[in-house]
Amino acid sequence: VDRLHNFDDLRYEHFLVSAASAFPVFLRIAKNIVSIGRGVYDLVATTREGHEAGNVHFGAFLLLTPLVYSEGDVDKAFRAVKASTYEDSLWVKKAFDMSEARVMNAEKLDLMDDVEVEIVRKRLNLYDWMKLAPEENFIAKEYVSGFELCNSGKEMLFSYYSETGDVNRAIVLTYMSFLAELPDPLIVAKKGMDVACRVKALAEDALNVYKETENFAVFDELDGLLISEGINPGSVADLTIASIFLALVEGWRF
Amino acid sequence: VDRLHNFDDLRYEHFLVSAASAFPVFLRIAKNIVSIGRGVYDLVATTREGHEAGNVHFGAFLLLTPLVYSEGDVDKAFRAVKASTYEDSLWVKKAFDMSEARVMNAEKLDLMDDVEVEIVRKRLNLYDWMKLAPEENFIAKEYVSGFELCNSGKEMLFSYYSETGDVNRAIVLTYMSFLAELPDPLIVAKKGMDVACRVKALAEDALNVYKETENFAVFDELDGLLISEGINPGSVADLTIASIFLALVEGWRF
Repeated sequence: VDRLHNFDDLRYEHFLVSAASAFPVFLRIAKNIVSIGRGVYDLVATTREGHEAGNVHFGAFLLLTPLVYSEGDVDKAFRAVKASTYEDSLWVKKAFDMSEARVMNAEKLDLMDDVEVEIVRKRLNLYDWMKLAPEENFIAKEYVSGFELCNSGKEMLFSYYSETGDVNRAIVLTYMSFLAELPDPLIVAKKGMDVACRVKALAEDALNVYKETENFAVFDELDGLLISEGINPGSVADLTIASIFLALVEGWRF
Repeated sequence: VDRLHNFDDLRYEHFLVSAASAFPVFLRIAKNIVSIGRGVYDLVATTREGHEAGNVHFGAFLLLTPLVYSEGDVDKAFRAVKASTYEDSLWVKKAFDMSEARVMNAEKLDLMDDVEVEIVRKRLNLYDWMKLAPEENFIAKEYVSGFELCNSGKEMLFSYYSETGDVNRAIVLTYMSFLAELPDPLIVAKKGMDVACRVKALAEDALNVYKETENFAVFDELDGLLISEGINPGSVADLTIASIFLALVEGWRF
């Protein structure tokens, strides 16, 4: 979904309503009135009341909450994730169930089956639990790496913006750079690893063509192809959202 | 400006940033922590920090503030406007100057020259002051009519939504219905009354064609024509924003 394309059951306006209705919960998270886990749960529960779609922002909320909790300071966010409790993990699992999001099956602790028992038994806080996620699930792995990709996304936004002077191009180029680097776990979950790797290669090609020709339409073509095949790199979009947040906190204006 | 079109100095992303950064001020307005006039000023002052464009939402803020102040109850909003003070008017004038918005010249009390002296001398509150605005300035006149157009816009949204089941179409049809009914004061201010009336007639035609043929593309054609001629019905857009707010408060979900 983007400003030009909708799915049958999920529209651009759902993203606007979800983002707008999330604001008061983000304020409580920023003031540390709620914990990270409870914050993710409150975000899903509150934003669902504003629209009639299913999951809109679960992955973005999972990434944004520790960053907002720590005023955009990734080191602080990393410490906060390590200092979280198993109750935070239970809240995130409840949020996940409520959001009906899709995610890759982990070998061991699967988000899909009744992982709560394991979380409680082993007192798995967010850091422990996300460590068990499959490597390709780079959203979960941000909790374990200290939000490295989000931080690199922020740097990319600044450099692409200084290069193009165009906020939308900077965002698309950052998005495509991630797509060219990482097989998207949402594609893996829905279409399998082969399709995810094919998309990665297509994004690499598009970036190379752009760097040689400055022809931005190459991305519209790739976008059109992905849409026509029902391929949705949603996790790369979540990573891009978190990168934008970090850039705005650091004073990015346009 | 819309999701597909930007001006050189004003982009779609400026509207997103302005809307997002307005949220905390709207919370204070909704809790009546600030008065209506001060609320309009705080909205302009706060949102300007989030982007590098000039005026984005002055007209929308002028309409939304009394409605948010009164939880979307237009009668309460009307009473609040009548109970406002001349200080509210001074705050709105300060907000207007800061926002560099464009508005029609009023015969008597012009927003452009130093109207402050008159406001203080005659103790003109918002209701008194907006009464002096020219009839065509339907944004100002909403303060005097008790937000009649905003209310009718809300009703139109509900009926067009039940007719089309499409949130975007309901909004476009409401927008076009206003455009077919009212010469837009922003067009009058920039291009003169003749052009504004011509646009009104074009919108009427487009609506009639749509009602006969259900061909929604007729509005894209009109949109393209207005853009090519640099015609911007901004006040009708502000009216549509306020109508959307009233509909959401009344439970509109999609």
